[in-house]
Amino acid sequence: MPVEQVETRSAVLFDGERPLALDSGATLAPVEVAYETYGTLDAAAANAVVVCHALTGDAHAAGHHGDPSRRGWWDNMIGPGRPLDTDRFFVICANLLGGCRGTTGPSSVDPASGRPYGLRFPLFTVRDLVRVQRGVTRHLGVERPLAAIGGSLGGMQALQWALDAPGELGAAVVVCASSRLSAQNIAFSAVARTAIMSDPDFCGGDYQEAGVRPDRGLAVARQMAHITYLSAESMRRKFGRRLQDGDVPRLGFDVDFQVESYLRHQGESFLRRFDANSYLYLSRVMDYYEPFADPVATAEAVSAMTSDVLVISFDSDWRFDTAHSREIVRTLAAHGAPVSFREVASPHGHDSFLLEVPEYHRTVAAFLDRVARERVPAAATA
Amino acid sequence: MPVEQVETRSAVLFDGERPLALDSGATLAPVEVAYETYGTLDAAAANAVVVCHALTGDAHAAGHHGDPSRRGWWDNMIGPGRPLDTDRFFVICANLLGGCRGTTGPSSVDPASGRPYGLRFPLFTVRDLVRVQRGVTRHLGVERPLAAIGGSLGGMQALQWALDAPGELGAAVVVCASSRLSAQNIAFSAVARTAIMSDPDFCGGDYQEAGVRPDRGLAVARQMAHITYLSAESMRRKFGRRLQDGDVPRLGFDVDFQVESYLRHQGESFLRRFDANSYLYLSRVMDYYEPFADPVATAEAVSAMTSDVLVISFDSDWRFDTAHSREIVRTLAAHGAPVSFREVASPHGHDSFLLEVPEYHRTVAAFLDRVARERVPAAATA
Repeated sequence: MPVEQVETRSAVLFDGERPLALDSGATLAPVEVAYETYGTLDAAAANAVVVCHALTGDAHAAGHHGDPSRRGWWDNMIGPGRPLDTDRFFVICANLLGGCRGTTGPSSVDPASGRPYGLRFPLFTVRDLVRVQRGVTRHLGVERPLAAIGGSLGGMQALQWALDAPGELGAAVVVCASSRLSAQNIAFSAVARTAIMSDPDFCGGDYQEAGVRPDRGLAVARQMAHITYLSAESMRRKFGRRLQDGDVPRLGFDVDFQVESYLRHQGESFLRRFDANSYLYLSRVMDYYEPFADPVATAEAVSAMTSDVLVISFDSDWRFDTAHSREIVRTLAAHGAPVSFREVASPHGHDSFLLEVPEYHRTVAAFLDRVARERVPAAATA
Repeated sequence: MPVEQVETRSAVLFDGERPLALDSGATLAPVEVAYETYGTLDAAAANAVVVCHALTGDAHAAGHHGDPSRRGWWDNMIGPGRPLDTDRFFVICANLLGGCRGTTGPSSVDPASGRPYGLRFPLFTVRDLVRVQRGVTRHLGVERPLAAIGGSLGGMQALQWALDAPGELGAAVVVCASSRLSAQNIAFSAVARTAIMSDPDFCGGDYQEAGVRPDRGLAVARQMAHITYLSAESMRRKFGRRLQDGDVPRLGFDVDFQVESYLRHQGESFLRRFDANSYLYLSRVMDYYEPFADPVATAEAVSAMTSDVLVISFDSDWRFDTAHSREIVRTLAAHGAPVSFREVASPHGHDSFLLEVPEYHRTVAAFLDRVARERVPAAATA
């Protein structure tokens, strides 16, 4: 059963009187946040599950906005009878700080100048993303979410939330994430950003005011990143060396192989929904993320953790491979935090976290069921 | 012992009276070729080893052009006592057709129009590259080269030469090559080309006439490709998460991590020596290369082969991984061709073929020694 029609709502969570204080020391106000919810909050406000989206996601995780054939990005995960069961859970998904789909970000107007922020938007951290997520849940009357869940950058937020707010988050589901990007991870993101920033229409980040868009650079960035989200094997299965038209190569530089056509489409459709500056900020926040950099602070934070943590990786994910997940598990376990880990077999690479991989969905469903039974007595008897 | 000072020479190998007939049906004249040689051709012209370069190589494989600290790209492989021992072998290396370092390519002037070819340069195949290699050897008085050797696109040429000219080539050394690029391989090259061709200064390939260069796109293409030439492990060892200056992240979009600085340098230095249109042609020729596409023609060509073939892959190469090499070996062996195979352990990824990896060098040296003893009686008694 899918979620039916939903709408994105909006709230101003931080304003001039109570601005968002960022890790950098900068403050930001107002911060408007776009979010969606699915299911019903129970009387004890104890059944909330927060979905944290990844680099290019948005608040529209499930259901549809009028056209039932165009559904939210995690519709297979969220709904009645699905792992994030909306008959039991009140599911919340907000567009991230720095995003471009309704939440304040670099394309928003800076009230101080009346101009879009552009690159004057302050750099933020995963901890800052969590500050905004926590603002959303409190806004919705939830002091103690049952769980936070996310893949990739979303998983980083779930992990960081568990570290930052002992006693608050019942559980964290950390899917194909990383606590420390590798040199290769950073390299791919760096080249993507170079493609964007070296586009002449980038205009130092002030392309909105110039009335242009660095679409060429952003499309190249997306195409390159997209290759890293798929496994070589899944690309072989999907495309192989098949040609777009007919059996005879056209021997030229136009699109000829199907994989070229697919990448071009990926680049073009991305331009319709994403902003280049948001890409810079939300990719850079991942490069810098390193919650376990300081051993003393790590020991203190992990020892104080109260959330159950489930870490999941996919065996064909080479963007954030299983070693990244194992490092998270090792660090949490070393300090006695309750953590379980599953490497799921899936041919789909990093993108697996978005797909309906049965073992993955079963694992998430069973974990949330257990957490709910242990932490939401009412739900256990429902 | 290294090779000492050398110079690049040049020859017109195909002209109006005897143009180069390409697989596409197009003809090309004149075709000028830049080449270097190291060592001395023996009286029987039986000791020639042809080095075929890869996508971004050139004729300057060994020695130096005046500054002994700046040496050819395969100087560790070529020289007295080295695997391509210039005390025994006469080593030849020519810039490829379509290149930009002295051989006719898209940046050359089309005599028919008086303008640089640009994208009017005809598409060519690996077989066409071999036609020009064979033109060079004949020009130097060599009818039967002892061996051809190359990595990546260079290995494709060595393999194709063995297939195209039974009885001519004593041996082929095919290093980290492929007989059929995968969808992921094609995808990376396609995005690199998109970066180049979508640069506003590309001007449809006529940037020379416009007095500009698509440097931004070419740098992005190079940076992305470069990531695929290294292994994740070698990037971890080289750079890890180390910062360029100091220990404290600067939290911005400028170069901050060492790996970012390295990639920027790779992009910039590439611009000084390479042409964007050559990049397009020499990457596209690899996408289309598929010598074993037709089973009947394959059986015929492989059965007729007389060259000894050595195939080498590197265990950390994920650009053309060992499966690519195994497919070449399997196909040759299935039709009774003499082929040996070695997967060499090396942490350096695809770039290993350029590096002094002892097991790799020993394998090449032993193979060439055996081939020379079997095929050049004079050399065996020298």
